[in-house]
Amino acid sequence: MTISINNLCVIGTGLIGGSLCLALKAAGAVNNIIGAGRSEATLQKAQQLGIIDAYDLDISNAVKDADIVFVSVPLGAMESVFAQIDAGLKRAANKTAIITDAGSSKRQVQQIAEKVFADDSNRFVAGHPIAGTENSGPAAAFADLYKNRRVILTPTADTDAAAVKRVIELWQTVGAEVENMDADHHDKVLAATSHLPHMLAFGLVHCLENMDDIEDVFRFAAGGFRDVTRIASSDPVMWRDICLNNQQPILDMMKRYKDELDMLYNALEAGDGEKLMEVFEHAKQTRDKFTH
Amino acid sequence: MTISINNLCVIGTGLIGGSLCLALKAAGAVNNIIGAGRSEATLQKAQQLGIIDAYDLDISNAVKDADIVFVSVPLGAMESVFAQIDAGLKRAANKTAIITDAGSSKRQVQQIAEKVFADDSNRFVAGHPIAGTENSGPAAAFADLYKNRRVILTPTADTDAAAVKRVIELWQTVGAEVENMDADHHDKVLAATSHLPHMLAFGLVHCLENMDDIEDVFRFAAGGFRDVTRIASSDPVMWRDICLNNQQPILDMMKRYKDELDMLYNALEAGDGEKLMEVFEHAKQTRDKFTH
Repeated sequence: MTISINNLCVIGTGLIGGSLCLALKAAGAVNNIIGAGRSEATLQKAQQLGIIDAYDLDISNAVKDADIVFVSVPLGAMESVFAQIDAGLKRAANKTAIITDAGSSKRQVQQIAEKVFADDSNRFVAGHPIAGTENSGPAAAFADLYKNRRVILTPTADTDAAAVKRVIELWQTVGAEVENMDADHHDKVLAATSHLPHMLAFGLVHCLENMDDIEDVFRFAAGGFRDVTRIASSDPVMWRDICLNNQQPILDMMKRYKDELDMLYNALEAGDGEKLMEVFEHAKQTRDKFTH
Repeated sequence: MTISINNLCVIGTGLIGGSLCLALKAAGAVNNIIGAGRSEATLQKAQQLGIIDAYDLDISNAVKDADIVFVSVPLGAMESVFAQIDAGLKRAANKTAIITDAGSSKRQVQQIAEKVFADDSNRFVAGHPIAGTENSGPAAAFADLYKNRRVILTPTADTDAAAVKRVIELWQTVGAEVENMDADHHDKVLAATSHLPHMLAFGLVHCLENMDDIEDVFRFAAGGFRDVTRIASSDPVMWRDICLNNQQPILDMMKRYKDELDMLYNALEAGDGEKLMEVFEHAKQTRDKFTH
């Protein structure tokens, strides 16, 4: 199903929000896009790049005529942004706008939405596109980012069914495959597939950066190192916020991983080639099975 | 400098050995290539693919007319292969063949070479091309693998200078940039840039494979996860051998990394956003600086 939107308001016009705008425009699915956000320079850049048609630094103004409000800001900014959206919609007596987001953890975002939007929280549809690159900002946005990627929505029993349907159409219009699941399940799965790997990559670069041989380390780094550490170039603010917003599931996965490393360390220290071989073989089989 | 080789003998005709053969042939730098190795099926495949001109399952036979013997077998097979090379060269009274290898750790290979080749060990030039993919076998070989990649040689004070010069030319002919360094320095740098990342990637997939949600984990894995775990599809035998052959430098790096993860875990457990932010920012800066 293809969506048709008259007025879209996008708060945060970087890689995630910007790419959605470009994709909707490419699909001819939106009439007018107004951007909002903290930084006027970013909004100007987004306008120059044709991502948005206009912008307003005052979020509560920007949302007033919106049919859909899309929030793609770091998780740490969600509560303040939601409060400004709520104030703007109330002031404009806009009773039909749907609000959705792109945050990488969902339980806490849902709780914030219920607190801030209160009786109107049924018009909030929590969402998370499983897509991105290590780059950020409007210049990193591109229309194909969501093509054939998955988007997870985590509506609750109270979420308005028509609003969910419309957000599904939004994502389908830009080529994504949408799946609904429970917020806790989302948070656990994402801690494993995304949040833990980011911690490991940031940690790897950070633990090497004080070595005497750091110049050689990077000079002789081959494709494997570059791939493993690519996501360590991701936006630090965004990842700090994800950590703090999905704290317990990430701690659980880190604990699991620390135990794994201890096991590998002990096997190597004991010169236990059989054990190492078993781990490497299982890992290879699992990865090969799931990535083909 | 471009090399010209009359008879090249390659022991192990998979990704590393096979790609060297294809590249030398593409450069018109070799007259005849004879392959040797454990598996006849692999050698037949290599011959079908035009990687080698002929093969001999008996290594001591295969080397008899060689000008250069290139050894690209897992580290655990080096000692036995070196012994067969030594026997073959002695029997054929071949006094001029140069032997070089592609092993991922160098101190232990050098020690094995000195033990096996004894008085002839000055004709052994230890080497390591910093190149590869997660694929293995002759079918994975391609002529461009070494183009613009680095190759580290770790000759000792006793290594014949003319032999080193010829091995440098060999690698330059296939487009690589050659650098000499001490074997211990090589082993330490590679433990950081390659061996540790492989341990982390194998460990990540292995620690996830018993989760209840393993299907979802891979279903919702985005580009970051795929990149971080790509090298977990590498050859388990090769990596078991690298671990056992470069044990102490890898243990040192794993210890360093375990401390890093403990620090990150504690910061997250304490909700210390400032500390997390500092680590992520440093990591991003370091990676961005060295990869641009």
